[in-house]
Amino acid sequence: MGGLDVDRLRAETPGVEKVLHFNNAGAGLMPGPVLDAVTGHLQLEATHGGYEAADIARPRLDDTYDAIAGLINCHRDEVAVVENATVAWNQAFYAVAETMGAGDRILTVEAEYASNFIQYLRLKETRGVETVIVPSTESGETDVARMTELMDDRVKLISVCHIPTNGGLINPVAEIGRLARAADVPYLLDACQSVGQIPVDVAEIGCDFLSVTGRKYLRGPRGTGFLYASRRAMERFTPPVLDLHSARWDAVDQYTILPGARRFENWENYEAGKIGLGVAVRYLLDVGMDAASKRLTGLAESLRQRLSNLPGIKVRDLGREKGGIVTFSHAEADLEKLAQALRAQHINVSTTKATSTQIDMTRRRLDRMVRASVHYYNTESEIDRFVDAIGALTR
Amino acid sequence: MGGLDVDRLRAETPGVEKVLHFNNAGAGLMPGPVLDAVTGHLQLEATHGGYEAADIARPRLDDTYDAIAGLINCHRDEVAVVENATVAWNQAFYAVAETMGAGDRILTVEAEYASNFIQYLRLKETRGVETVIVPSTESGETDVARMTELMDDRVKLISVCHIPTNGGLINPVAEIGRLARAADVPYLLDACQSVGQIPVDVAEIGCDFLSVTGRKYLRGPRGTGFLYASRRAMERFTPPVLDLHSARWDAVDQYTILPGARRFENWENYEAGKIGLGVAVRYLLDVGMDAASKRLTGLAESLRQRLSNLPGIKVRDLGREKGGIVTFSHAEADLEKLAQALRAQHINVSTTKATSTQIDMTRRRLDRMVRASVHYYNTESEIDRFVDAIGALTR
Repeated sequence: MGGLDVDRLRAETPGVEKVLHFNNAGAGLMPGPVLDAVTGHLQLEATHGGYEAADIARPRLDDTYDAIAGLINCHRDEVAVVENATVAWNQAFYAVAETMGAGDRILTVEAEYASNFIQYLRLKETRGVETVIVPSTESGETDVARMTELMDDRVKLISVCHIPTNGGLINPVAEIGRLARAADVPYLLDACQSVGQIPVDVAEIGCDFLSVTGRKYLRGPRGTGFLYASRRAMERFTPPVLDLHSARWDAVDQYTILPGARRFENWENYEAGKIGLGVAVRYLLDVGMDAASKRLTGLAESLRQRLSNLPGIKVRDLGREKGGIVTFSHAEADLEKLAQALRAQHINVSTTKATSTQIDMTRRRLDRMVRASVHYYNTESEIDRFVDAIGALTR
Repeated sequence: MGGLDVDRLRAETPGVEKVLHFNNAGAGLMPGPVLDAVTGHLQLEATHGGYEAADIARPRLDDTYDAIAGLINCHRDEVAVVENATVAWNQAFYAVAETMGAGDRILTVEAEYASNFIQYLRLKETRGVETVIVPSTESGETDVARMTELMDDRVKLISVCHIPTNGGLINPVAEIGRLARAADVPYLLDACQSVGQIPVDVAEIGCDFLSVTGRKYLRGPRGTGFLYASRRAMERFTPPVLDLHSARWDAVDQYTILPGARRFENWENYEAGKIGLGVAVRYLLDVGMDAASKRLTGLAESLRQRLSNLPGIKVRDLGREKGGIVTFSHAEADLEKLAQALRAQHINVSTTKATSTQIDMTRRRLDRMVRASVHYYNTESEIDRFVDAIGALTR
């Protein structure tokens, strides 16, 4: 698969010697330069002081914003670097939610993630806001034609999951973006799995907010994430929580929200992680987003074909075009025990349960699946080993 | 000063060779064992995978809760480990705020911190909630007699800063706790500066919520903090944001908030930092909270006396009994430049501005102060060097 120097990329990934890692949708293996950036800054904090180290590292901290802006095609003042994707999503969601009232509607998708949907249920209790689940097409993507029919004056937010936690599905986010723009409805995109996995261009998608984690396909440190907030969205919506970093206390009874997306951040930071996130994004830009995505989706397709030849295995991924997350079940095997048995062989996968994606899993009558999520640094020979191991464990 | 093996404690603090660190209220210097715990876990994540490393480190992650519970005298299920003190405080504050309406009152103190007060101002805009500032006594502490007079049915929250960011003041938090209990009003204590600096016992104080950062007097990693939420408070108040970690998505239209203070956490964590925070708390417990506090307050008192002998210097700390934060100004010197000149000599202090503690600073007609915050690992000879440097720079 052209373009990538896989040997070099693997040599720069300390984990590949220890584990066969197909849990990249949990957390990708950090490249050496990311690990070094994080631990190096922690050492600097220990020898120079936490704030003093941040002053020394200011150019690297600043570069994290530029790197992210370059990756998703936005302005650097539209990027807030926050603790994780949940914080990013919540800051955007509640900014919009605070403008909503009884009878207002959120449109969401069948693949929606538990954490987001729990907030919709909460908003129903606290504000009487209704959430409407847009059905999917036969191939599994959100049905944009049906979404179009559901658009009316009650719809005050479109909140969509780009690539769900439980499979290869990729939702038609740019088509949804055109719909949102035409209706002038704010559009929040949960890109937790997609950024780093496939090219994501916020201008092309036309979303107002985009929430992302560092730890998954970006191969950044745990405890990092970011929010894209368009300038347009920042004019319309106020962050739900503010502090000394996002606002200035001008007088006893007066404050000013500060310019740019920093208004969605807060004062205290895991600075070492923030630097590491920037290094991870630069690393990906050096690898090449298109080439990385092409390779990992190719590997995932190969894995799906190989798994589907095994007796008893059923590959479960939806979508006409699929990403790097491969899900499967087995007619008889206990999937938790299967994952544990793989772990004992230093093969990392995860399992995905109905409680994470209740709507989709209920509709498909699924309780649990094994999730094998591949990255560009994985190889065909790892797929061989993996398929052999699954074959042996389910024989 | 009895009890502490200062030589050993300094040998275990890599930073003391490089810097004279009087910026412990910014971020304390991490002890070697804390740094090693954090970087060691990051390495484990890089070689084994992020979630897989967390599984391996589960006992250490769990111990963080036990260590904190031991330090502040609560149950482990009353501890939420979160990203920082701001998140901790916001989770508690908005849990209570959501139950408040127009005309309801918050009682707070003159030493209140900007980030908190900005939220009070916001709550006035969004819900019509009034905030009443309880005056201080002549010596600077919150006047509990005045607070008692202000207690009426409109008061729905007492929100107090234990030790402010800008000085040696220690507020009478246990007296306020008795008042809160008697009136059955929820009591949120911002203990960002106090935990690790002086003994803090939540049972003795009688607060419902207590928010803390890891990076200051606990000497933990940046990007860590915790919230104490009493079992009683958890029965009365619901976290303002929920996710897959704090709640379970039982069916498409149904969720359950999970037991214990984890309901204030979210799914994703800086696990390495969480481990480091636990190690930092254990380290402090080994040093001995009482002995550590006695030593650092003694050093601070010594620093105050020495500084007050310098021409032009005015020590600004309030309070009958004072903690480890020493603040001062100078009749003519530019305090920012003074701090920078110290930094050039590898002496770390910070400056504190009116925008951080607007009420207190306005009342005292102060715009800016130098803040020199000492810890138990500092020494009298560092005080000598510091006072000499200040003397030379302001001569």
